[in-house]
Amino acid sequence: MPTPRGMRDFTPELALLRKDVFSRIERVFRSFGFDPIETPIVELWETLKGKYGSEEKLVYWFRDPWGGKELALRYDLTVPLARFLAEHPELPLPFKRYAIGRVYRHDEPQRGRYREFYQCDVDIVGARGPEADAEILRVIGAVMREFRLPGYTIKLNDRRLLRGIFRRELGIENPLEVYRAIDKLDKIGWEGVEKELRQLLPASKVRRVRDILEMSGSPDEVLDQLEMRFKDGGIREAVEYLREVVGLAGKNHIKLDLSLVRGLDYYTGPIFETVVKSPRIGSITGGGRYDELLGKYGKDLPAVGTTIGVERLIDAGLALGIFRTRKTVAEVYVASIGAREYAWEIAERLRDAGVPTRVDLMGRNWRRQLQEAEKLGIPRVVLVGRKEEEKKQAVLIEDGERRQLGLDELIRSIAK
Amino acid sequence: MPTPRGMRDFTPELALLRKDVFSRIERVFRSFGFDPIETPIVELWETLKGKYGSEEKLVYWFRDPWGGKELALRYDLTVPLARFLAEHPELPLPFKRYAIGRVYRHDEPQRGRYREFYQCDVDIVGARGPEADAEILRVIGAVMREFRLPGYTIKLNDRRLLRGIFRRELGIENPLEVYRAIDKLDKIGWEGVEKELRQLLPASKVRRVRDILEMSGSPDEVLDQLEMRFKDGGIREAVEYLREVVGLAGKNHIKLDLSLVRGLDYYTGPIFETVVKSPRIGSITGGGRYDELLGKYGKDLPAVGTTIGVERLIDAGLALGIFRTRKTVAEVYVASIGAREYAWEIAERLRDAGVPTRVDLMGRNWRRQLQEAEKLGIPRVVLVGRKEEEKKQAVLIEDGERRQLGLDELIRSIAK
Repeated sequence: MPTPRGMRDFTPELALLRKDVFSRIERVFRSFGFDPIETPIVELWETLKGKYGSEEKLVYWFRDPWGGKELALRYDLTVPLARFLAEHPELPLPFKRYAIGRVYRHDEPQRGRYREFYQCDVDIVGARGPEADAEILRVIGAVMREFRLPGYTIKLNDRRLLRGIFRRELGIENPLEVYRAIDKLDKIGWEGVEKELRQLLPASKVRRVRDILEMSGSPDEVLDQLEMRFKDGGIREAVEYLREVVGLAGKNHIKLDLSLVRGLDYYTGPIFETVVKSPRIGSITGGGRYDELLGKYGKDLPAVGTTIGVERLIDAGLALGIFRTRKTVAEVYVASIGAREYAWEIAERLRDAGVPTRVDLMGRNWRRQLQEAEKLGIPRVVLVGRKEEEKKQAVLIEDGERRQLGLDELIRSIAK
Repeated sequence: MPTPRGMRDFTPELALLRKDVFSRIERVFRSFGFDPIETPIVELWETLKGKYGSEEKLVYWFRDPWGGKELALRYDLTVPLARFLAEHPELPLPFKRYAIGRVYRHDEPQRGRYREFYQCDVDIVGARGPEADAEILRVIGAVMREFRLPGYTIKLNDRRLLRGIFRRELGIENPLEVYRAIDKLDKIGWEGVEKELRQLLPASKVRRVRDILEMSGSPDEVLDQLEMRFKDGGIREAVEYLREVVGLAGKNHIKLDLSLVRGLDYYTGPIFETVVKSPRIGSITGGGRYDELLGKYGKDLPAVGTTIGVERLIDAGLALGIFRTRKTVAEVYVASIGAREYAWEIAERLRDAGVPTRVDLMGRNWRRQLQEAEKLGIPRVVLVGRKEEEKKQAVLIEDGERRQLGLDELIRSIAK
C-alpha cells in the first residue's frame, strides 16, 4: 500500500540525514535563545478559515466521523503561533520561539513540492524596533554558515518602500498587479516584466519602474539613493529603519532588492528571502515583519520572523554533495564465534560509553555477521571467540587492520 | 481560539522538557543501533481499515475536500511500519528501526490520555530467535535506567504459555473472556477476579487458574515449575525460549507474570510491560512479539518491539520531581548601557562558542534588561557599557557575584 500522494516515507539513510539537518538548524535557533513551542497538527477549521486568502483552497479541511466537527491540518506554523499567543497571555515579551514541524498543503506535487513537509520557523513577538529584524537576519546568516552553502545572498526589501514608491510616488492606485509582474523577474527577465507592465501602465511609468528597480544593490548605496530621490514620509521612515537593521545585522551577503515582493499579504515592514547561486532552487528562506496579523486573534502584537525552507535546503545540499549519508547510526558491530554472551557484554559496555553498537540477532555464523556489518557500512567490527573471552580480550577490525586489545583498552580506544 | 479537545499546546517550559525526554530516549535507542524511519501522519484509510479490531472506532478517518479521497491520521506507529516494510523490500534484515512521533485516537480525554500524543517505538523485524526479544528487554532496561525511575519491574509472559495453559491444559475453549477477567487483577484484586471467573468456569477450574497465576515471580523459579507441571508442547517450547531470552536480557527487574495478558490480539510469543511502584500510572512500556502481523501486508516477517509510553513517563517524572524545568534555553543575557553593538558582538562570539545567548531587542534600559533576564531565569548576565567597550572587557554577573573580565577570558570562562 502506498503513502497518500505527495507524502513520503523516509528510510533510515534519509531519515538520519533529515534529523541531522533539523537538529543543526535547531542548534542555531537555540544559540540565539529562541525557545521551542509545540502546537497540534490538527486545528479547529475556524482557526484557519479566512487566514490564507486564495491559498485557503489548499488547506486540508475535514469533518470528523463522530460529531462532524470541522477540523483542519495546519497549513503553516504562523497562524498556530498567533492562536497560541492569544491562549497564553502570561508569556513574557519579547517572546522568541522556534518551531520545527510538519505542515500540509494540497498542492500539485512536483520536484521539491510536497503535500506533507517540514517547516522550521523562528519568530520574535512583541518587539517593534529594528533590533528584532536584525536578529532574524543574523539567524538566517548563521544557518547559511552552518550548512556552508556557497554564494548565498539575503535579499532585503520593505513593504513601506514598495507602498511609498508605487502607490504614492508613481500614483499607481492598485500596485498588486505591478508587484505580481515584478515578482517574475527571476523567471522571465526584464523583457518579460516590461511586456507585462506595459499592459498595466503607461510607457513613461514602465521606464520609471525599471529605473527604480535597477537601483538594487548594496544596502548603503541603495538607501542613500532612495533618500536623495524620494521625499515620501513612508519611504524616509523605511530608509531610516533599514539603515539600523543593516547596521546591526552586518552588511555581508545582504542585498537591497526593490524587486523583492513576496506573496503573503500580511507583511507590513521589512521582507527578506535568501537565494543561493547553485543549484537553482528558488529561495531557501523567506520572512518579514507582520505587525498586524496577530491582532486578528485578539492579541495585538508586532512580530517578525522567517521560515527556513528545510526541504529545499536538504534537496540543495544533496544536489551539491555537501551532505554525507550513512545507512545506520551503528558505529560498531560486535561479532562472536561461539561467545555470544561475551559479545553482548562488550556491546553493553560500548553503549554505556555512548557508542551505538549492534550485535547479531539472527544466530548467524561469524562470517555472515561480518557481512551484515559490511552491508550496513558499520566502520568498526569487534570480533570475539572463546579464547578472547577467557583472556578478557577482543580483536578490533578497523580500516582493514586487526588489533588484539584488552577489554578496557578496547572500550577506551573506541569511545574516545 | 482553543486547540481541538484532547490536543495540547506546549509552552517553552514543557516543550523543552519534552524535547529533552524524546532525545534521551532516542539516544538510548541509537545506542543499540536502532535507526530512525519516518512515515506520514496521514495514511490512506484502506491502510488502517480492519487493523485495530474494536479500536477502529477511535481512528480519525475523513474524506478530503477535493476528490473525497478517504484518508486517516495514524493511530499508532506499528501499522505504518508494516506498510513501510512492504514498500521497501530492499532493506537488509534484521531491520531495526525506531520512530518517535505523534499518533491520534478519538478517546475520551482524561488525565494522562490525549487525542494527540507521542509514541516512541523500537522494533526488530526479521529475527525469529530469542536474541531479538532479549535486546528489546535490554532497551527497556536502558530507558528505565536513563530516567532513574525508582523500583521498576518488567513483567514478562508469553502468548504460547497462555494458550497452552488455558486452552489445552485447562480445556477452556474460548479463553479471551478469562484473559479479560485476569487483566483486571491490578484493579479489582483476587476477590474480584475470582468472582468474574466463577461466571465463566466451574469452581474447580477457577481454583486451578488462581493456583497457576500465583506462580508468578522470578523467571527461573516459574520456568522450572512450569516445566515440571505441564507436558504441553507449546508450553515446553515457550519455557525453553523464555529461558534463553531471560539469560541474554539479564534477570534483574524481570518478573514472569502469568496474569499479564495485554490487549492487542496480534501478539504471538513473549509479551511484556513495565510498571513502576510510584506514582500509580499503569504500565510505562508495552510490547511483545508479533510474528504474523506483517504477513497481512504481503511481507511475511517475524517482529518484536515495544512502545515507551512517553506521555506517562513525562507525567510520572513530573509527579516524582525527577525533571527540572526551565523557562528558556538561553544561558547568558548580554545587557548593555549605551554599547549595543558591542553587546551584540559579544553575543555572537558566545553563540559561535555554542552558548545560547539573548540580547535586548526592545531598546530597554539596562535595569529592565536585567529584569528580563531574571524573569526568564537566565543564570548569567554579561553587562557592558562604553568603558568596557573601550577596554574590550565585560562584567560577568553570576551567582550574585560580579567579575570584570577581558573579552577572551569571558568567552572561555562561560563556554567551558
